Amino acid sequence: MKRPAIVIAHFESFSPFDGPALDRLDTVGRLLDRKPLHSWDDPRAQELLAETEVIVGHWGCPLFGPEFFESAPKLRLFAYSAGTVKMYLTEDLWERNIAVTSGADANAEPVAEYTLAMILLANKRVFPAIDRESHRTGWTPPDTAAAHGNWNKTIGLVSASLTGKRVARLLEAFPHLEVQIYDPFADADTIEALGATKQESLLELCAQADVLSIHAPALPETHNLIGRAELGALCDGATVINTSRGHCLDLDALTAELESQRLFAIIDVTDPVEPVPSDHPLRTLPNAVLTPHIAGSQGTELARMSEWVIDEVDLYATGRALRNPITPEMVDQIA
Amino acid sequence: MKRPAIVIAHFESFSPFDGPALDRLDTVGRLLDRKPLHSWDDPRAQELLAETEVIVGHWGCPLFGPEFFESAPKLRLFAYSAGTVKMYLTEDLWERNIAVTSGADANAEPVAEYTLAMILLANKRVFPAIDRESHRTGWTPPDTAAAHGNWNKTIGLVSASLTGKRVARLLEAFPHLEVQIYDPFADADTIEALGATKQESLLELCAQADVLSIHAPALPETHNLIGRAELGALCDGATVINTSRGHCLDLDALTAELESQRLFAIIDVTDPVEPVPSDHPLRTLPNAVLTPHIAGSQGTELARMSEWVIDEVDLYATGRALRNPITPEMVDQIA
Repeated sequence: MKRPAIVIAHFESFSPFDGPALDRLDTVGRLLDRKPLHSWDDPRAQELLAETEVIVGHWGCPLFGPEFFESAPKLRLFAYSAGTVKMYLTEDLWERNIAVTSGADANAEPVAEYTLAMILLANKRVFPAIDRESHRTGWTPPDTAAAHGNWNKTIGLVSASLTGKRVARLLEAFPHLEVQIYDPFADADTIEALGATKQESLLELCAQADVLSIHAPALPETHNLIGRAELGALCDGATVINTSRGHCLDLDALTAELESQRLFAIIDVTDPVEPVPSDHPLRTLPNAVLTPHIAGSQGTELARMSEWVIDEVDLYATGRALRNPITPEMVDQIA
Repeated sequence: MKRPAIVIAHFESFSPFDGPALDRLDTVGRLLDRKPLHSWDDPRAQELLAETEVIVGHWGCPLFGPEFFESAPKLRLFAYSAGTVKMYLTEDLWERNIAVTSGADANAEPVAEYTLAMILLANKRVFPAIDRESHRTGWTPPDTAAAHGNWNKTIGLVSASLTGKRVARLLEAFPHLEVQIYDPFADADTIEALGATKQESLLELCAQADVLSIHAPALPETHNLIGRAELGALCDGATVINTSRGHCLDLDALTAELESQRLFAIIDVTDPVEPVPSDHPLRTLPNAVLTPHIAGSQGTELARMSEWVIDEVDLYATGRALRNPITPEMVDQIA
């Protein structure tokens, strides 16, 4: 079988594919240039694209404008080595029957790990304890109030997305935590296979959850999916975790609940602005933990996405089925 | 079979046994008084102890002084519903063949959960990111340096104690993290059954570990077990977690390494003083996370220990073997 001609395309300033990863790409296919493309218009890009059968993209891969496909007449596969691929999925691409795959499966793992860690620490009220210590506001003895602790608690997951599913699977090691999932597109069998129960009502999920973790994709229907009513349905002392997209959570409504000290929040993504302004209350509220969009792949975790996507290219090059083919029908439901 | 006479003994000021737990104690045995004993000397205690076959203790259960056993001639079982039971294990107790059990197994779970969460966040460098945000020292974009991330990292566990074993088992869900355990008393088969590898040399464990987590009991041999040499063997950027006893970690040596910004630390227990003084560097060093001895059971987690120990009393009352009998031979190796 002929080894397909490959280019890589991503920000000039970072190196998600190390030497061994580039060597492997040049084994499963023919890597036309070890230097990434970061625009489609310069002469080097035009020359390489004329031959290219596979683009392996990563963060900073240029979008496919109207002229692009004429420069890349042999393109058969776009393998995007990161999570969110939607912005590349144009009508022109589908019309040319270009196959698409992404590293979303591999990116779900670090997000799920971050979420699991935060669920365990939220139930134990570890962050307020760190705050007490670091800020030298005095020693408070461990609080033995019944509400604390990872025992007989309910975790509500919003969406059985790749990440939501992986969180549920990780939580199977903690049978003392009940997991409920709200996802109108997932059937009860799929959810029960994850060791969780399907919750038909989002408001009821909120009412039951000690920790509510959002894993929904950013779609028109999920804008402020967790808003004033849903946050209001949470019990006193519940924690909201958002690692999906700021789009899915009404930040003003959350801030109001945090200011009234009714809820806790662990927020990795915000909307409409990310990062939030330096004077935003989220930065100082003692019941809020704010992280700068780091739940997804970082550092060594980029290698996991690279390996996953190079495996996909290998499957393509040897005529086998992709594990994560992205089709036009999926576009309305994926991140 | 005759239901044994039971008393409960713990601090007056907290209620580790709720109504249903007390009801259950009065089913597996005869609970002589629903009010706890908090000294052995008052008339109520003396009257109850004369009949008592089982003491169910918790935090604040008085120690067994030289006169104690004469007041409790029928005592056959001491069931301590918390982790560290060693201070009750006197020669007088062993001579009278009083059986002992504890909730250490149940207490290992929350410690292991705290540890797992901290390992996952440490590898991702989440705490420095929270600090940046909360303290408004400005936005720093996600760092993609190779050292970050939960991928191809090595976790070094010091001691295959109940907690160390549970941490190893939880880490089996993360095959991309290699687990090595140093424990001169555990054989390689036991450690391999946990999905880990036995490391014969403590210094080598330190040299390999991206995260070093201490789970050793406080014994004369484990005083400052992790000291200057061991900390010096850790690679730059490694994280030390201590949830066992401050006794096992040389805090001055750790502080020096933290002040030179070579290591990170997540510290729940300290020695010789706990909590550390309000002006101790650990409270303000940006690479240190200090929590106030909360990794063990808190809040709802106390119910897990209560259930465990009531199960033990039930086994005793029905003539079956305890799951966690504590024997004189174990004293030198347990917490």
